Amino acid sequence: MRHRYFSVEPAQQRAALALYQGVKDLPLLCPHGHVDPRLFADPDFQFGSPVDLLILPDHYIFRMLYSQGISLADLGIPPLPTAAGAPAPAANHREIWRKVCAHWHLFRATPTGIWLRDELADVFGISLKINRANADAIYDAIDAALKSAAFRPRALYERFNIEALATTDAATDDLRQHQTIRDSGWNGRILPTFRPDGVVNIGQAGWRANIERLSDLAGSDVHDYASYIKALESRRAFFQSMGATATDHAALSAYTEALSAADASAIFARALRGEASEKDAARFTGHMLLEMARMSSEDGLVMQLHIGSWRNHNPQIHAQYGRDMGADMPIRSEFTKNLKPLLDCFGNSPALTLILFNLDETTYSRELAPLAGHYPILRLGPPWWFFDSWLGMTRYLDAVVETAGIYNLAGFNDDTRAYPSIPTRHDVWRRVCADWLAGQLVRGFIDEEDAQGMMRALAYDLAKNTYKLDA
Amino acid sequence: MRHRYFSVEPAQQRAALALYQGVKDLPLLCPHGHVDPRLFADPDFQFGSPVDLLILPDHYIFRMLYSQGISLADLGIPPLPTAAGAPAPAANHREIWRKVCAHWHLFRATPTGIWLRDELADVFGISLKINRANADAIYDAIDAALKSAAFRPRALYERFNIEALATTDAATDDLRQHQTIRDSGWNGRILPTFRPDGVVNIGQAGWRANIERLSDLAGSDVHDYASYIKALESRRAFFQSMGATATDHAALSAYTEALSAADASAIFARALRGEASEKDAARFTGHMLLEMARMSSEDGLVMQLHIGSWRNHNPQIHAQYGRDMGADMPIRSEFTKNLKPLLDCFGNSPALTLILFNLDETTYSRELAPLAGHYPILRLGPPWWFFDSWLGMTRYLDAVVETAGIYNLAGFNDDTRAYPSIPTRHDVWRRVCADWLAGQLVRGFIDEEDAQGMMRALAYDLAKNTYKLDA
Amino acid sequence: MRHRYFSVEPAQQRAALALYQGVKDLPLLCPHGHVDPRLFADPDFQFGSPVDLLILPDHYIFRMLYSQGISLADLGIPPLPTAAGAPAPAANHREIWRKVCAHWHLFRATPTGIWLRDELADVFGISLKINRANADAIYDAIDAALKSAAFRPRALYERFNIEALATTDAATDDLRQHQTIRDSGWNGRILPTFRPDGVVNIGQAGWRANIERLSDLAGSDVHDYASYIKALESRRAFFQSMGATATDHAALSAYTEALSAADASAIFARALRGEASEKDAARFTGHMLLEMARMSSEDGLVMQLHIGSWRNHNPQIHAQYGRDMGADMPIRSEFTKNLKPLLDCFGNSPALTLILFNLDETTYSRELAPLAGHYPILRLGPPWWFFDSWLGMTRYLDAVVETAGIYNLAGFNDDTRAYPSIPTRHDVWRRVCADWLAGQLVRGFIDEEDAQGMMRALAYDLAKNTYKLDA
Repeated sequence: MRHRYFSVEPAQQRAALALYQGVKDLPLLCPHGHVDPRLFADPDFQFGSPVDLLILPDHYIFRMLYSQGISLADLGIPPLPTAAGAPAPAANHREIWRKVCAHWHLFRATPTGIWLRDELADVFGISLKINRANADAIYDAIDAALKSAAFRPRALYERFNIEALATTDAATDDLRQHQTIRDSGWNGRILPTFRPDGVVNIGQAGWRANIERLSDLAGSDVHDYASYIKALESRRAFFQSMGATATDHAALSAYTEALSAADASAIFARALRGEASEKDAARFTGHMLLEMARMSSEDGLVMQLHIGSWRNHNPQIHAQYGRDMGADMPIRSEFTKNLKPLLDCFGNSPALTLILFNLDETTYSRELAPLAGHYPILRLGPPWWFFDSWLGMTRYLDAVVETAGIYNLAGFNDDTRAYPSIPTRHDVWRRVCADWLAGQLVRGFIDEEDAQGMMRALAYDLAKNTYKLDA
Repeated sequence: MRHRYFSVEPAQQRAALALYQGVKDLPLLCPHGHVDPRLFADPDFQFGSPVDLLILPDHYIFRMLYSQGISLADLGIPPLPTAAGAPAPAANHREIWRKVCAHWHLFRATPTGIWLRDELADVFGISLKINRANADAIYDAIDAALKSAAFRPRALYERFNIEALATTDAATDDLRQHQTIRDSGWNGRILPTFRPDGVVNIGQAGWRANIERLSDLAGSDVHDYASYIKALESRRAFFQSMGATATDHAALSAYTEALSAADASAIFARALRGEASEKDAARFTGHMLLEMARMSSEDGLVMQLHIGSWRNHNPQIHAQYGRDMGADMPIRSEFTKNLKPLLDCFGNSPALTLILFNLDETTYSRELAPLAGHYPILRLGPPWWFFDSWLGMTRYLDAVVETAGIYNLAGFNDDTRAYPSIPTRHDVWRRVCADWLAGQLVRGFIDEEDAQGMMRALAYDLAKNTYKLDA
Repeated sequence: MRHRYFSVEPAQQRAALALYQGVKDLPLLCPHGHVDPRLFADPDFQFGSPVDLLILPDHYIFRMLYSQGISLADLGIPPLPTAAGAPAPAANHREIWRKVCAHWHLFRATPTGIWLRDELADVFGISLKINRANADAIYDAIDAALKSAAFRPRALYERFNIEALATTDAATDDLRQHQTIRDSGWNGRILPTFRPDGVVNIGQAGWRANIERLSDLAGSDVHDYASYIKALESRRAFFQSMGATATDHAALSAYTEALSAADASAIFARALRGEASEKDAARFTGHMLLEMARMSSEDGLVMQLHIGSWRNHNPQIHAQYGRDMGADMPIRSEFTKNLKPLLDCFGNSPALTLILFNLDETTYSRELAPLAGHYPILRLGPPWWFFDSWLGMTRYLDAVVETAGIYNLAGFNDDTRAYPSIPTRHDVWRRVCADWLAGQLVRGFIDEEDAQGMMRALAYDLAKNTYKLDA
C-alpha cells in the first residue's frame, strides 16, 4: 500500500505521498546499530532458521510474550551456562514459530508488529497475516528464502540500497571482522564505532579484565590514569584508521563532572586495586564523558551519548538468561544540569559533535530542543528504543522541531541488530516525516520548497552530515 | 448523536461508528469504584433531590465552582461538626441548583460538563442545555424522575446493563451492606474490594482505633506484627468469601521496601506505642505493599495500586469540610526504581496481578508501558481521576499501546461514586477506544479483524479477565 | 491566507474560520511583555535599520544561528565592554541581513520563522520569501517602511489596535519614561509592571547597589528587613499610581517558605553585610514570594510568577556578551509541593490573583490545571517562551482545559520585546484557539454558543479580567 500509515485526510495524504516518493529511493545510511560484522565478513553467511533470524535475537518480541506468561524457555532462549536448574529451551524451531504466531495479536498496533509484517511483505514477499493458521506457510516461505543466495547479507546490502552501515564495537575489540571485510575487496561500507563503556565503567564486572585486554591491544601497560588515557587515544586512532567516524557511550544518567587530574588518578588507582566505591564509579563515568568530549574535539570522532536505560531490571531473568533479555527499563532523565560541566568546557567547540539520546520524552521539549537550539556541538538523535515507533517519532517531531528546527537533528538511525528489518525501519521513519511535513505544508506553516528540503534532510542529509559519512 | 465525539474525517468516523456499534450493547463491568453498597442493600433506596444526587457528593463539580470564587457553603456543603465558626450551608436545593446552572459555562469542554449533559440526556431523557434559563425545568424533570420506581438503584442496575460492580471497602468494614444484598436474593452482582489503607498507614489519625476494630472483626488481638499480619489475612479471606476479587491500595508514592521481619516488627511496635516517625510510616507502607503482594500471590486477590495524590492539599478547606473536597492534588511519580523491591520478589509470580494507577502522565510511556510490557504480573489501569477524559484517555492510548500492547491493560473502570453517571463514563471510554482504533485502522496499522478484537477487549474482556470476574 | 494554519478537514476549517473572524478585530491586550517604554515616550522614535529592529534584539533568532556555527560577532552583536579580546562585531547591517537570510531555512517550521514571515506580510506588506535571493529586496522594503511616519511606535499602536500594553520595570526604575508618556497627552495606554527581582535576589551581583537605589527612590533608608519591606510597599504604591495593575517575579523554582520575622530579618542582615549563603538566598526568595503575595492581597496588584529558566547557561557567551543571549535553558519544575506554603497562607484569599508560568510542559496536566481548578487565587499564564508556538499552545489547551476549564486561564500575553511582532503573535494565539475550539465544536463536545463564548474569552476577556485592565 503506497500510502500506508499516512493521514487519511485527502490533501495531507497526497502531500505526504509526494514527499515520500521524492526520497524513498535514496540510499539508506545506518550510522548507529548493532548488526554483527560477521554477517559481512563471511560472503556465504546464512541466517539459520526463521526463529534464529527473527525470534531468538529480538528482545522486543520475547519481552511482550513474556509479559503475557510465555516462558523464555518455551521460546527457545538458552539459559546461561552458569544458571543452575534453568529449564531446557525448546529446540523445535517450527513449534516455537507456531507459538509466536498464535500469540501475535499481542503485537497489534505495536512497532514490532508493524516491522515484522512489513519486513515479511517487503523483504520476503510474504503477504500472509501472521497468525496461528498461517504459521507453517510463513515459516516455510521464510525458510526457503533464507536458503537462497539472494538472502546472503552482502546481497541484501545491495538490494536494501545501503550506503554505509556502522556496527558498535567494544574499545577492546580487535576489529578482526572489519579487517576481513576490508581485505575481501567487497565494496560495501561497514564502519566500526568505538564504544568504551567496558573500560570506562570501573564498577562493572569484568572491568579489570577489560583493562588487561586494553593493555594488550594498545601495546602498552595500563597501570595508571595517564597510561589509561594514552591507551584509549591509541584505540580511537586505530578505530579511526579502520573507518570509524563515531564513538558511542551509554550511561544511566547524563551526569558529567570535570575531575582534577589528581582526583581522576586517585579514583583510577582505587579501581585498579578493586577498591573503588559506587560514588567513585559514577564520578569517573561523568569525568570520562568530558575526557571523551576532549578527545573527540581533537580527533573529530562524533560522540554519541545514550542515557537512561536501567539495564537488567529483573534479577531473576538476568541470573538465568543474562543481558538484553527485554528487561531494560527507562528512567527519568535530566540534561540541563547534568551536562553543564561538559558544556562549560566543550559546548562551543568548533570540532565537536555530541548526539544525545534518551528514553524520557519529557526532555524533548524541556531540555533537549532548547539545548540543541543553542549549543553548536549538540545534535538530537532520533527517538530511541521504545520510541522508535509511529507515534513516538511523531511526538518527537512535535516536541523538538519548533524549538531546535530540523537542522539540529541527527536524522535517523535504525539502532537494530535485526539486519533484515533495516529497510522497514527506515521506511517508517521516512513515512512519519513525510506525513508530519505534509501536515505542516497543507496548513501553511511551510511551503513546497521547504517541505522538500526538509524531507531530504530528514531522510538522508542530516545523518550523512552529522556522522561525517561524506568523507 | 450516534457519532458524537468521533473524528469528523469521514473514513475514520465511519470506522469508529462501526466499531462502537459492535460493543455498545455489551454489559458494563465496574471492577473499581466508590458507589455506596447501601444503594443496593435497600430495594427502595431513593436518591433525594437533584442536588443530593448530583452536586453534594461530586467534588469534580464543586472544586471548579470554588476555583471561581463560589463558597462551598453556597453550594450546600455541610461543614464538619468540629469546624467552629464555619458558615451555615445553603439549604434550598433549588437555589443551589440555579447557582450551579448559572455557572455551568465553567465546565465547557471538561469531562464533568460532558458527563452531566450526557447523563441528563441518556439516563434522564432531558435534552435541555444546562444554563440559568433552563435551571428550573431541568431541576423539576430530574426531581420527578428520581421519585419514580425506574430510578431505584436496582432498577437502574438492570437498565444500565451492569454485569458486576465492585465497591471499595475498608479492611475494617463488616460488609453488612454486602451481606444484606446477598441475603436479599436480588441477582445483581455487587462485590466488595479490600482496602487496608486505614490499618496500614501507621502515621494516619485514627490508625490505632482502626487496629482495635481490626482486632474485633478478626476475632483475635492484634498486639504485634505477627498477629497483625494474621488478622489481615483473616480479613482478606472474609472479603473473598463475600465475593471480593481484588484489593486496593493508595499511597503517595510507589516506594516499596522489603523490611526484615525484625524491622517490620519493631516499627509496628513503635506504632502501637504511638512512637512511629514519619520515616517509619513511609517504610512501613512500602513494606506492606510487598506483604500485600505476597498475600495476593497466595490468595489470588488482584492487587490495585493508586499512586500520587496529595490528599487535602488545602488546609483551610480540610479543617472546615474534611476529606474529598476537591483539594487533592497530583504529584510527580516514579515506578522503575520505587517498585523494584516488590518486583524483585514477586515480578515473575504466576498467580499475581498488580494493576497500576497514577496521576503523572509522564510515567505512561517512560515507565508504566515498558514495565508492563515485560513483567507478567503488571497491568495498567485506565487513566485515573483528572485523566478520565476524552483527551486524557487518548493520550494514554497513544503513550502506552505501542510499547505494552493492549493486552497488558486492565480495560476500563469508572472509579466513581456517582452511580447514575456510570453508563456515560463507559460510553465515553468505548467511544475513545473506537475512535482511536479507527484511526489505526484507516491508516493501515491494523486490519478489521484486529480492530474488532481490540475493541471488544478494551470494552469488556480485559476488565473481565484482569479482575477475574469470569469466576 | 484567511485560513492559514487551520486544520484542513473542511468542517473544522470552516468552523475555525468563523470563530476566528468573530474575534480578529477585537483590540489587543498586552498585559505582560518587554517593550521598551521609550518607544512611546518619544513621539518621533525611529527603529533604525532592519537589523536594529529585527535581529540585534532577538535572541530567538541568534540562538538558532549560533547553534549552527554562526558567531554572534558575525551577526553584529556587540561584546560587553568588559570582554577582553572578544571579536569586533560586524557593522554592515545589509551584510548581516544577507547572512541571516541565507540561513533562514534553519527556521523552517519554527515560530520564529512564522512570526517574521507573517510580520513582513501583515505589518510591512512584504510577501517575498525570506532567502538569500530576496535578501536585498526585503532589506530595502523594510528600511523604507521604517523611515515612514506610519512606522513610528505610536502610529503602530493605533494601527495594531492595541488597547493596553504593559512594560516590565525594575522596582528601582523611576518610571521616568512612563511619566513622559503620561505627560505627553497621548491617549495610548502604557502601563508599568513592578518587577522586584533585583532587590529580592540577595545572591545576585548588584543587589547591594539596588538596595541603595531602592532607599533613594523610596526616600527612606533601607537598613533592615522592616525598612526594606516598607520601601517595597512604597514602590508598589508608586507603580500603582503610575497605572500598574500587576507585579512580575522570576525564580529558578517555585519554592516558597514562610520565614519567621526573626529569620527573615537575620538573613536580610547577613545579606546587607555580604555574608548571605546560597541557601539563605533560596530561602529568602521563597519567603519574599509569600511576602509579595501578602502585599498583593492587600493592594490588589496581580502577581505573576515565571519559573524554571536557568539563565546564562553558557558561561563563555555570558562572559563575552552578557544576559539574554539565547543561552537560557528550561529546567524541570514542581508546584504542588513548592507552592504549598504560599497557598496555605493565601490560597483562599479573595483579593489575590497569582498567575503561573513555567517551561516544563509536564506540569500542565499534572499540577497546574489541578491546582488552578481548585484554588481561587490561581490562574494559568499562556504557554511561555519556547512554547509560545502553534504546537506548544495546542498542547497547552489539550493539557489544561479538561481539568481547569478555560476560565482559570489568564488569556494571552505576547511577552515580547519585538514590538512590531505583536499583532502576529496575537494572531497565532487567536488562530490556535479558533482551531482548537473548532475541533471541540465539530466533534460535539461543545456547541456554537459555547465555542463563541470561549473564543471571545480566550482572545480578549480573560486577559482583561485577570489583569484588571477594565479599571
